Amino acid sequence: PDIQSTGDVRKVAINKVGVTNVRYPISLRTPGEGEGNTFLHTVATINMFVSLPHHEKGTHMSRFLEVLNEYHEELCSDTLVEICASMREKLKSQDAFLDLTFPYFIDKKAPVTGQSGKLDFDVRFEIAAGTIDDFIMTLKVPATSLCPCSKEISEYGAHNQRCEMTVKVRIADGVHLWIEELFAMIEKCASTQVFSVLKRPDEKWVTERAYENPKFVEDIVRDMAVTLNADDRIEWYQCFSENFESIHNHNAYAFIENDKREKTD
Amino acid sequence: PDIQSTGDVRKVAINKVGVTNVRYPISLRTPGEGEGNTFLHTVATINMFVSLPHHEKGTHMSRFLEVLNEYHEELCSDTLVEICASMREKLKSQDAFLDLTFPYFIDKKAPVTGQSGKLDFDVRFEIAAGTIDDFIMTLKVPATSLCPCSKEISEYGAHNQRCEMTVKVRIADGVHLWIEELFAMIEKCASTQVFSVLKRPDEKWVTERAYENPKFVEDIVRDMAVTLNADDRIEWYQCFSENFESIHNHNAYAFIENDKREKTD
Amino acid sequence: PDIQSTGDVRKVAINKVGVTNVRYPISLRTPGEGEGNTFLHTVATINMFVSLPHHEKGTHMSRFLEVLNEYHEELCSDTLVEICASMREKLKSQDAFLDLTFPYFIDKKAPVTGQSGKLDFDVRFEIAAGTIDDFIMTLKVPATSLCPCSKEISEYGAHNQRCEMTVKVRIADGVHLWIEELFAMIEKCASTQVFSVLKRPDEKWVTERAYENPKFVEDIVRDMAVTLNADDRIEWYQCFSENFESIHNHNAYAFIENDKREKTD
Amino acid sequence: PDIQSTGDVRKVAINKVGVTNVRYPISLRTPGEGEGNTFLHTVATINMFVSLPHHEKGTHMSRFLEVLNEYHEELCSDTLVEICASMREKLKSQDAFLDLTFPYFIDKKAPVTGQSGKLDFDVRFEIAAGTIDDFIMTLKVPATSLCPCSKEISEYGAHNQRCEMTVKVRIADGVHLWIEELFAMIEKCASTQVFSVLKRPDEKWVTERAYENPKFVEDIVRDMAVTLNADDRIEWYQCFSENFESIHNHNAYAFIENDKREKTD
Repeated sequence: PDIQSTGDVRKVAINKVGVTNVRYPISLRTPGEGEGNTFLHTVATINMFVSLPHHEKGTHMSRFLEVLNEYHEELCSDTLVEICASMREKLKSQDAFLDLTFPYFIDKKAPVTGQSGKLDFDVRFEIAAGTIDDFIMTLKVPATSLCPCSKEISEYGAHNQRCEMTVKVRIADGVHLWIEELFAMIEKCASTQVFSVLKRPDEKWVTERAYENPKFVEDIVRDMAVTLNADDRIEWYQCFSENFESIHNHNAYAFIENDKREKTD
Repeated sequence: PDIQSTGDVRKVAINKVGVTNVRYPISLRTPGEGEGNTFLHTVATINMFVSLPHHEKGTHMSRFLEVLNEYHEELCSDTLVEICASMREKLKSQDAFLDLTFPYFIDKKAPVTGQSGKLDFDVRFEIAAGTIDDFIMTLKVPATSLCPCSKEISEYGAHNQRCEMTVKVRIADGVHLWIEELFAMIEKCASTQVFSVLKRPDEKWVTERAYENPKFVEDIVRDMAVTLNADDRIEWYQCFSENFESIHNHNAYAFIENDKREKTD
Repeated sequence: PDIQSTGDVRKVAINKVGVTNVRYPISLRTPGEGEGNTFLHTVATINMFVSLPHHEKGTHMSRFLEVLNEYHEELCSDTLVEICASMREKLKSQDAFLDLTFPYFIDKKAPVTGQSGKLDFDVRFEIAAGTIDDFIMTLKVPATSLCPCSKEISEYGAHNQRCEMTVKVRIADGVHLWIEELFAMIEKCASTQVFSVLKRPDEKWVTERAYENPKFVEDIVRDMAVTLNADDRIEWYQCFSENFESIHNHNAYAFIENDKREKTD
Repeated sequence: PDIQSTGDVRKVAINKVGVTNVRYPISLRTPGEGEGNTFLHTVATINMFVSLPHHEKGTHMSRFLEVLNEYHEELCSDTLVEICASMREKLKSQDAFLDLTFPYFIDKKAPVTGQSGKLDFDVRFEIAAGTIDDFIMTLKVPATSLCPCSKEISEYGAHNQRCEMTVKVRIADGVHLWIEELFAMIEKCASTQVFSVLKRPDEKWVTERAYENPKFVEDIVRDMAVTLNADDRIEWYQCFSENFESIHNHNAYAFIENDKREKTD
């Protein structure tokens, strides 16, 4: 007997049911120019859910993995929306949710010597199909913050530290936003950027640049908001920065949320 | 010059600004009976935020820690709402947010031999003061789930595993709900409970009890919902279970949210 | 002035100095048969160190990343020993250490229906060049354990759970051991294996197989030791299993270490 | 039948078998002066093991928790060696191992204003009884590092960051070393210290102090070694620092080990 298909009498619908913490190789289309391979290979941690109406006893858990295994070596950013639709169909559900988090890499040149190196950061895609079709992209952007107060009050020096700026955006229908574009918009909001390789002249440049450009965590998050407000492709966002203060064993944090569609009137 | 107090021209208000990842010793009042010490000592990881209007440049980060350090060894569950109000006042803000996560312990007797032992689990309090006064409590309740399908189709045995049931509740004004009460309500929703010490007769009891009481992750989360629906002290909840499947390297998951106030009409 | 190259008077040599927590895309040669792509793409978290004699002030941190960035998209398991030698040379050190941890994937067929799916697990390579040339491989193998005591004393059922078996091996000079080979040797040591996709007949098979094959954590780790003792390619090993007990909120653990070269006499 | 007590024919002894990831409230004796409460309450994550000879099938897992639960609210640093001996006796083993990790707190005054606040850091005790009686203490000390090269080459400013210095020491028989003493010895080795609360004059002090005292990760770890070499209570140590570079998304690291007893001749 297929127990999952028997009825349920509790009259309680389930918002999301499925599998979590599935790791899978995935490739991402990159905005590489010219010919050749423009895909980046990485590994995603994946959650997959569907909704379940109150009268159904259970979902069919193995089908989530079957959908994924159909793609096998070919799981790719191009097909994620299709996969979410496929989950909805194969599991006969009103709503399907596909949630992937993966490390991403961009080639970045050092500011003076131009030496190239890979910078890593985390990206998340949250896709929904059904009642609402949705696509939310989150980036965790590492950078440097330098404290304006510390600079102002000190004879010399200023405390600075790595910070992590998180941006979560809902993109308007029919428009495209590359990870690389959003990354570049956001990393400008800190005191200076981080790099993979810095030779002596590069280190001088980033040190002085940070000192010339002090920012509180409040400044960073406000500059993120101003940047995100100005891009019409972004309908809604949350952004925050967490600064790993070099003078404390705790962090500084600031958070802003904005739903542009609410403000139109 | 006090840079934080200078103005800001970006016209962007900040929803939350403050400190994260502050660890601090804390004591929690427990429903212990009779005389004697009824406080449990543990360690919280704390986030503290206030809102910042668009025209203020920055908040005063050191004041968050000053508020905490005033309480010193005496930080206690009795004073958390007071601390949140104090943050709002000392930082002259419209809104203050206090968020604490800590391990909690209950003494639990083994089901047959009655041997007592401590069971650990995580608790989170999210407190808000200002525009909205709020108190949200989250518990992560460990237990055992046993698969009905595996039991049904197999000649003998059934796969089972540890699961973690998470419940997040908003409590109605003026009522009280002990951690211990909510824990007891929730752990009943799994196939069987987990214990610190199990002697031979206890192990027989929990093994057989789980086999007699198979539950899908969907059943567990629905039973959580039915339980939470029935308690009028709870105005709103989110609940989910994550089952660490013994036959897979990924987890099964189900989630339900219910705002009772929306349903009253 | 190149401060790193000035002398040091403290008379203290440094065993290891370098960079940690570098994430980088990497490809691994797999034992795939026939023609075509036999490389698996994944992401490694990398530590890179050299030794530093007492009279040298500092190492040149940027060179570690330069070595890595030379390989760029082509970082591959074939070249890791070469990279470690290159670190030693470019940093003019007596000893170099290269340490990589990455998720790995194998295609595994369900035991009855033969449905194929990817199973993920963590692998670590620790490579040394210089005073000692060394290669240590660590695998974290997920599987299922079922408790013999619980089975013996209960009328029906037996508690079971996911376990993680860790094996760390030093391989003899000039011999080869595929990740896939070591994985297959180790996963046999548990009560039964875990799979990506299990249809109904597969779930019956693994449930019954686990019940027929109960093992304490002590049995699992001893069977790992017997297996590793029997393979002459392995000179030294550490192995342990951590079982995420379904009836407790803590884990069961057992550990064995064996240096075969010490036992030869 | 007591399966654990039946024999085993595989001829494989087990180095360590027991329980991991047990959380428990614990109190630590502090060097507080005068009368009153001199105990600090915190929460430990505990591993407990014994050795098992080749001819014994299994250990008795529930006894580990029984030993712990005997102490109940009274688990204390004063009794840890006694607990390890008790494990050895109750489990009839040659060797017993008790391993506890917990957050610890010290009251620290800001350098200029003298404002007091709690600083948190992690401590680990590894205790062995039997073939070898051993006590190893590990501290993870947060502080600030400022880069000498960045200072030297830049017109103004210098990159700095939080660092975490880890020290692991074996203490000679019959001598005592407070956590507070070791912490104070180690935190001096960085460019400057971190604090809970810093008012304006304090922030000026730490900013300038760091700038006046630049240190590479190599300098930090060498100063740790020099400090540890000079204290005769310490027989053996490992020490390392991990610096969370503000200009990179990876960390700088250096490590030194020294067994003083080997060097005596």
